[in-house]
Amino acid sequence: MTQPTANIGVVGLAVMGSNLARNLASREGNTVAVYNRSYEKTETLLTEHPEAGFVATQDYAEFAAALQKPRTAIIMVQAGRGTDAVIDALTEVFEPGDIIVDGGNALFTDTIRREKAVRETGINFVGAGISGGEEGALLGPSIMPGGSAEAWVTLKPILESIAAVAEGEPCVTHIGTDGAGHFVKMIHNGIEYADMQLIAEGYDLLRRVGGLDPAEIADIFAEWNTGELESYLIEITAEVLRQVDAETGKPLVDVILDQAGAKGTGAWTVKSALDLGVPVSGIAEAVFARSLSSKPAQRTASSGMPAGAEEWQVTDRDSFIEDVRRALFASKIVAYSQGFDAIVAGAEEFGWSIEKGDIAKIWRAGCIIRARFLNRITEAYAEQPDLVALLTAPYFADAVGGALPSWRRVVAGAALAGIPTPAFASSLSYYDGLRADRLPAALIQGQRDFFGAHTYKRVDKDGTFHTLWSGDRTEVSAADAH
Amino acid sequence: MTQPTANIGVVGLAVMGSNLARNLASREGNTVAVYNRSYEKTETLLTEHPEAGFVATQDYAEFAAALQKPRTAIIMVQAGRGTDAVIDALTEVFEPGDIIVDGGNALFTDTIRREKAVRETGINFVGAGISGGEEGALLGPSIMPGGSAEAWVTLKPILESIAAVAEGEPCVTHIGTDGAGHFVKMIHNGIEYADMQLIAEGYDLLRRVGGLDPAEIADIFAEWNTGELESYLIEITAEVLRQVDAETGKPLVDVILDQAGAKGTGAWTVKSALDLGVPVSGIAEAVFARSLSSKPAQRTASSGMPAGAEEWQVTDRDSFIEDVRRALFASKIVAYSQGFDAIVAGAEEFGWSIEKGDIAKIWRAGCIIRARFLNRITEAYAEQPDLVALLTAPYFADAVGGALPSWRRVVAGAALAGIPTPAFASSLSYYDGLRADRLPAALIQGQRDFFGAHTYKRVDKDGTFHTLWSGDRTEVSAADAH
Repeated sequence: MTQPTANIGVVGLAVMGSNLARNLASREGNTVAVYNRSYEKTETLLTEHPEAGFVATQDYAEFAAALQKPRTAIIMVQAGRGTDAVIDALTEVFEPGDIIVDGGNALFTDTIRREKAVRETGINFVGAGISGGEEGALLGPSIMPGGSAEAWVTLKPILESIAAVAEGEPCVTHIGTDGAGHFVKMIHNGIEYADMQLIAEGYDLLRRVGGLDPAEIADIFAEWNTGELESYLIEITAEVLRQVDAETGKPLVDVILDQAGAKGTGAWTVKSALDLGVPVSGIAEAVFARSLSSKPAQRTASSGMPAGAEEWQVTDRDSFIEDVRRALFASKIVAYSQGFDAIVAGAEEFGWSIEKGDIAKIWRAGCIIRARFLNRITEAYAEQPDLVALLTAPYFADAVGGALPSWRRVVAGAALAGIPTPAFASSLSYYDGLRADRLPAALIQGQRDFFGAHTYKRVDKDGTFHTLWSGDRTEVSAADAH
Repeated sequence: MTQPTANIGVVGLAVMGSNLARNLASREGNTVAVYNRSYEKTETLLTEHPEAGFVATQDYAEFAAALQKPRTAIIMVQAGRGTDAVIDALTEVFEPGDIIVDGGNALFTDTIRREKAVRETGINFVGAGISGGEEGALLGPSIMPGGSAEAWVTLKPILESIAAVAEGEPCVTHIGTDGAGHFVKMIHNGIEYADMQLIAEGYDLLRRVGGLDPAEIADIFAEWNTGELESYLIEITAEVLRQVDAETGKPLVDVILDQAGAKGTGAWTVKSALDLGVPVSGIAEAVFARSLSSKPAQRTASSGMPAGAEEWQVTDRDSFIEDVRRALFASKIVAYSQGFDAIVAGAEEFGWSIEKGDIAKIWRAGCIIRARFLNRITEAYAEQPDLVALLTAPYFADAVGGALPSWRRVVAGAALAGIPTPAFASSLSYYDGLRADRLPAALIQGQRDFFGAHTYKRVDKDGTFHTLWSGDRTEVSAADAH
């Protein structure tokens, strides 16, 4: 029988799991037990990384026996049924007080369900969002754990040891109970979808309107990465655009098929936001832009349709580039504002006490949307913990305010020139909607009252009212409506 | 014991249910048994409508006994758990071959589940979408029944007797098996959300840019209702805008609180489309515009934010009005095109054989989105049954093509003037995205491959590829990627 020599275990040794295990093993004080359904993968990992000192195990009983108490295991398997099977197996061999961490991309409602079920056994279940891809898993991801405060006591030093570090602080914090961690990770991914779509629209404009080639645009993104847009996604955009295809000598971006795939977390974000009644229109447009791109039959059928557009004559290329940069930054602020709205609404709905400022902090490094301006989000929530809309905080309001003329020119110019900018345009409409004194929603309420007797409220007094549209068209209080 | 004298029964006698029962009773050959949980409502209905000759029943056994075989009952209760309770009660007293119709606004996945469960008893379960509100229920709704072909044989004459009539044809057809009817009704509602939002944006522009007052805009909508925009929603918009509040003397639309409510079917449409991978961006923007309007705290916090906008100087008011009309029509075509895409995708996913042209036909009268141009949709699918995108059909392509300069001017003008047009702008971006030869989705695939090794396809050969971004940056076939 294996001796309990490991302080942490990893189940599932595909790339993310083995990288996370190696990351854990590389940190002072950690001894890592590993288990994989097929032992072959375990053997390969041991052979390739003898330096890690892994404790290899061949079944769950052995895995449990290898772990010091409270046993702590991180599951890194494909989200879905596989996760349930591993949880079931671990609860068989673990004891009350032990900790099971699901580090996969689980849907937060599954995590809520699983936490509830596992809690009944006395074992702690922690759904932890882990962002940063394979490289992040190996070198330091951003980690968003949910679960109980009790489990966090044990997990804190372990997760802090492997997390990315931003300005001296580890990118991990206890997000909230049960599904809070996976919820926040989901929103992170939703923002990531929006951010990527915005960058893609900016690139498209620079290319099609600015007449710049990918290498020139790579230089522009690299320069943008030294300013307020500084972020991992801007940085890698420059790298991707600079890449030349060895086979054709063309820019790689021109050789890649323009049909974007998706793993589903963007759609989850939009669906959750719809349930919560939070308008995440920029994220939705990003998700839909990907699905539209992946409809070759429809695109082929539509490709001959008229443009009816004017050519966009750029007279001053530098100020055009600056317009695009500002439009991108302002739209990005909207995406983050919408994402944080969803976090606030989720916390309220599911009873989580979430520190918004801490979320921004742990996204500063390790994760895909890491960006310089996340410090500004932390500051905004520190100054105003009950901030109702992120984009109204002074720094963001100033940034958006300064960008407005550029933002408007870019959206208007693209509309006239026939270049799709769904996320830029949606973000601008969102901003103009939010600040509008009056919205035509009043007319919609009138229509709804007309055809469905859905009633309406008035601006000048309390109560709910209905106009007798098919009667004498007098107004009645809704209590009398029928 | 009641004698089996009724050929149809209605369970649930709130407004929709009693109106539908009265509609049934008014048609030659129908005798209608009615049942309601509290008998008081049944008594009221009988007292108020002796002409209907209702067969009143006090419990489910009596209700079943009153019905001729095969027994046919339409449930008209609040969607949700109430529906399940009534179905359970009816399956207790019904026999194999009998028919239970759920005429409520059920989520189609619930209908699929219920049909499967009820089918095991030998009883037919039919989820039927019914549109037209209270007035439609009474005078003739558009009816979208799913369920088995066997049940349709019995239901056809009954439902045809009460449905709205369009150009001599009853607005009811067998949509497909199990949840097909409720699915198509859901999409109907999604399109309705988009249509209402587009009308609201058009109104807002005529008001804020055109400087027209509600009565003048009412006249414009009334005039539009004589042309290609002719539809129920355009018609009632004129009515609502013409309405003057008796108390203040102001236009009613200025007295109604500008926070739009929603019953959830719009959000269902977007969520289902996300599951199906269909971009329904216009519908999503409409749903989000309502939720944005209903965030008073955020709107108040944002109301002082800068516009950074230019005033939109309209030099020729008539051509401005015509621009708005064309933008509305083109955007509306996009909304329908997206809705029909979702129907096609849903039919494929759930194994329904849906006649798209017939759907358009039964929407011509009775329902909320009834419109003249639905005949054009029927024609489009008659000419090209496998049409991949509605807006590429000749009539719609011509309409959109003719509208393009106007559509672009309106979206661009609104962006510059600071007026939110989320649905106009989103529809235009959708159109420009669909017809684009190249989309920046290629860059997104490059980013995804960079940070997550998600791989990409190439334009020039088959296969799936990955660039070794953190290695020597050569390209490998995905089989070797890891």
